[in-house]
Amino acid sequence: MARVSGKQDGEQQLLKLGQSIRANRLALDLSQEALADSAGIDRSHMGKIERGERNVTLLNILKIATALQRPASALLAEAGL
Amino acid sequence: MARVSGKQDGEQQLLKLGQSIRANRLALDLSQEALADSAGIDRSHMGKIERGERNVTLLNILKIATALQRPASALLAEAGL
Repeated sequence: MARVSGKQDGEQQLLKLGQSIRANRLALDLSQEALADSAGIDRSHMGKIERGERNVTLLNILKIATALQRPASALLAEAGL
Repeated sequence: MARVSGKQDGEQQLLKLGQSIRANRLALDLSQEALADSAGIDRSHMGKIERGERNVTLLNILKIATALQRPASALLAEAGL
């Protein structure tokens, strides 16, 4: 069966999504605080998500994607995930 | 700014991903237990993910995607997310 990712891979994957979120946020000229408020996510938590320091849930990914006006699948695809 | 999803929307979105996971699992002729074991996810938790009863994390989505030999972005796109 396919290999399952280990811990270090996981941290890299979280960071990749965080970078994709950040790039989309900057493309909309939004501050991290404005994105957090628009998505209804705690500002401190949003910072950790962008830095890949939190194992973000699907529902939070979807809230962020809505606020970024992108499908969640596009954010993941841009992150190579 | 874009509307953020409410609770009921969230349940529907989780169910959509669960259905996408299930369809891909069946296409590989895998049992739910075999997929759980391959992904390294508790079997009971996997059942709840497929039924949309759990707010699955990105790292678990990625483990499931790896076990299904699909990019996570493809699973989400097939779920319309």
